[in-house]
Amino acid sequence: MDIKILFGKTVREYRLKRNLSQEKLAELCELHRTYISDVERGDRNVSLENIYKICSALGVSVSKVFKDMGV
Amino acid sequence: MDIKILFGKTVREYRLKRNLSQEKLAELCELHRTYISDVERGDRNVSLENIYKICSALGVSVSKVFKDMGV
Repeated sequence: MDIKILFGKTVREYRLKRNLSQEKLAELCELHRTYISDVERGDRNVSLENIYKICSALGVSVSKVFKDMGV
Repeated sequence: MDIKILFGKTVREYRLKRNLSQEKLAELCELHRTYISDVERGDRNVSLENIYKICSALGVSVSKVFKDMGV
């Protein structure tokens, strides 16, 4: 189990549920679009602050995201 | 609200509940003692992989830790 891949998949699911493009999510988070793309592919070991920014932009609590991930 | 400080406080609470020293927790996580000390003080923007290692070593789910943090 790779937690980076699991987190990326879950972010992607929420982003699609919200009908957001990677560009739009990046804008809401004040992060770069390519960073969001890397996160969704599991290529980034995302930090606390960015986890919080991304979940907030997706309108979901951090605890719910990790609960969905089963960790 | 500083999520790094909030995370650090919550880790410290769980560590004390488990009667673990910083040294012992560090050993269980395969991280350095000074790193754990920094995390508890809110001085580290902890990454996904280390969040998972620390919570696992504390015997608590990541989702529960963030729920306790109210985020």
